[in-house]
Amino acid sequence: MSERFQNIAVVGLGLIGGSMCKTIKNRTDCKVYAHNRTQAVTEKAKEEGAVTGILGEDAGLSEMDLIILGLYPDACIEYVKNNLSEFKKDAVIVDCCGTKQKICSALYELCKRNGLFFIGGHPMAGIEKSGFDASFDGLFNNASMILCKLNKNITDAELCKPDEREYNSEYDSAYMALKGFFLSVGFGYVKESTPEEHDRVIAYTSQMAHVVSSAYIKSEACKTRYGFSAGSFKDMTRVAFLNETMWTELFLENRECLLREMDEFMQHMRQYHDALEHYDEEELCKLLKEGRLCKTADIQGEEEQQKRQQSEQ
Amino acid sequence: MSERFQNIAVVGLGLIGGSMCKTIKNRTDCKVYAHNRTQAVTEKAKEEGAVTGILGEDAGLSEMDLIILGLYPDACIEYVKNNLSEFKKDAVIVDCCGTKQKICSALYELCKRNGLFFIGGHPMAGIEKSGFDASFDGLFNNASMILCKLNKNITDAELCKPDEREYNSEYDSAYMALKGFFLSVGFGYVKESTPEEHDRVIAYTSQMAHVVSSAYIKSEACKTRYGFSAGSFKDMTRVAFLNETMWTELFLENRECLLREMDEFMQHMRQYHDALEHYDEEELCKLLKEGRLCKTADIQGEEEQQKRQQSEQ
Repeated sequence: MSERFQNIAVVGLGLIGGSMCKTIKNRTDCKVYAHNRTQAVTEKAKEEGAVTGILGEDAGLSEMDLIILGLYPDACIEYVKNNLSEFKKDAVIVDCCGTKQKICSALYELCKRNGLFFIGGHPMAGIEKSGFDASFDGLFNNASMILCKLNKNITDAELCKPDEREYNSEYDSAYMALKGFFLSVGFGYVKESTPEEHDRVIAYTSQMAHVVSSAYIKSEACKTRYGFSAGSFKDMTRVAFLNETMWTELFLENRECLLREMDEFMQHMRQYHDALEHYDEEELCKLLKEGRLCKTADIQGEEEQQKRQQSEQ
Repeated sequence: MSERFQNIAVVGLGLIGGSMCKTIKNRTDCKVYAHNRTQAVTEKAKEEGAVTGILGEDAGLSEMDLIILGLYPDACIEYVKNNLSEFKKDAVIVDCCGTKQKICSALYELCKRNGLFFIGGHPMAGIEKSGFDASFDGLFNNASMILCKLNKNITDAELCKPDEREYNSEYDSAYMALKGFFLSVGFGYVKESTPEEHDRVIAYTSQMAHVVSSAYIKSEACKTRYGFSAGSFKDMTRVAFLNETMWTELFLENRECLLREMDEFMQHMRQYHDALEHYDEEELCKLLKEGRLCKTADIQGEEEQQKRQQSEQ
């Protein structure tokens, strides 16, 4: 287990924060201290043995080697700003938010100026329930953990500016330690990315899925669907059961990427619609075949990706 | 086990027909005889013990009490027309097609005039693979079987026209026997419907899911999604791997219902798009909340439906 992270704070005990506590507590010798706005949840977590203790009571923020933020994006930024003077020097801070550009812009440099290491994080795991009671050790099994490093794309020359050399070198060590830590607690893969790339792709893989699912469930026909549905309906509407407050914040933060995806999707939908409207059998069949080939390529790509992962890690 | 159906023909050994053979052969004492356009598949089915024998070699169509059609809609109609004089009197014929109005219009009265009982069927089960090799006993476990009866909505007075009384009464017996048969081989529920209701609802629960999935997979962003995706992307794109020839035929047959669903879905999508475009946080949150409440009502409705089923059957 990582020796760098002996004391770990988890701030925010929702589905993700709660599952982080339970996973780390069960699988490592690290001490886990939790903070949550509603104190009753923190106490419950302690009683259940999901954490070692309560942050600010059983141990202070200044003792924490790693701080995992399980809050909404704006609340993460606010928490770091409000506690800047409290963090231990060299502490690593990682968030779990669904968008990365806003939080990374706000915290990369701020943390750097204060001798802290902020790394943007996004565990690719979730279920349609939320809150501490839904959290469990196992949520992250074999999932991908996306980490966005400061300066990922910086050139070596820039990295070598004398006044930044030491920080950047320590930052890289912190990043490697964090990567190793997440792999050691059950994540299947750490995907290194940039905030820009992350937000562009996540708009497609995750945010759009939630929009489509939410729109899909609203058809009048849904009310008469019992006995007429199987797996495809279920899959299509699963994530319509979502936390609208969190997703509204995430959508607005990633507005441009998400709008671009919506436009592209609706253009495709329009092609199927028009082919069907004009009884264009050949075109309709062509459109469906193209979709099948995309899916085939996607499955093959995933298999190749998995092979690469296995050889890398 | 049903005494009415001793000899059963399965025509068309794709995923559905093949799974029907394996399920009936494994779970009943009925004899199952198969016919398939490509003879090699029929022979393979016999070698593997998935069927008792080959239709037309080991037993004739005139000996069959029940004929299960596992062909595409047009091929089903053609098969029945071409073999009208061969069927046993009082034989029950059921199809497994994804649309019901066209096939029921073509076969209800035709079969009636020939002393046969045609019942429209649609097993609500499927996987994203097709063909005999993908078929298995278990595909229908707890699935819903939709059956569309002739004259479901006819009034009692009409049912009592002297010249139709006997046929209608025998038809009802055939229907009850078929319902009992499907429940006995593992289906969880038999949903009685009309061709019109079936096609309207199935356009939403199944056809739309395939269109959306096919359109969703086509985004440029898909090519860079590895490491950035989890369950919601997977669920959203699973059925994009489809048989485009079959689905094109089904979509065109159910064109009006499917176009209506596409229009409704795209109107909903447009609302999310516009709210996001105009930075309308309140509206966006409201739209997502409505979707969550629809999903909540849908889950509750399903639980109530399951309770009703258990008490009915």
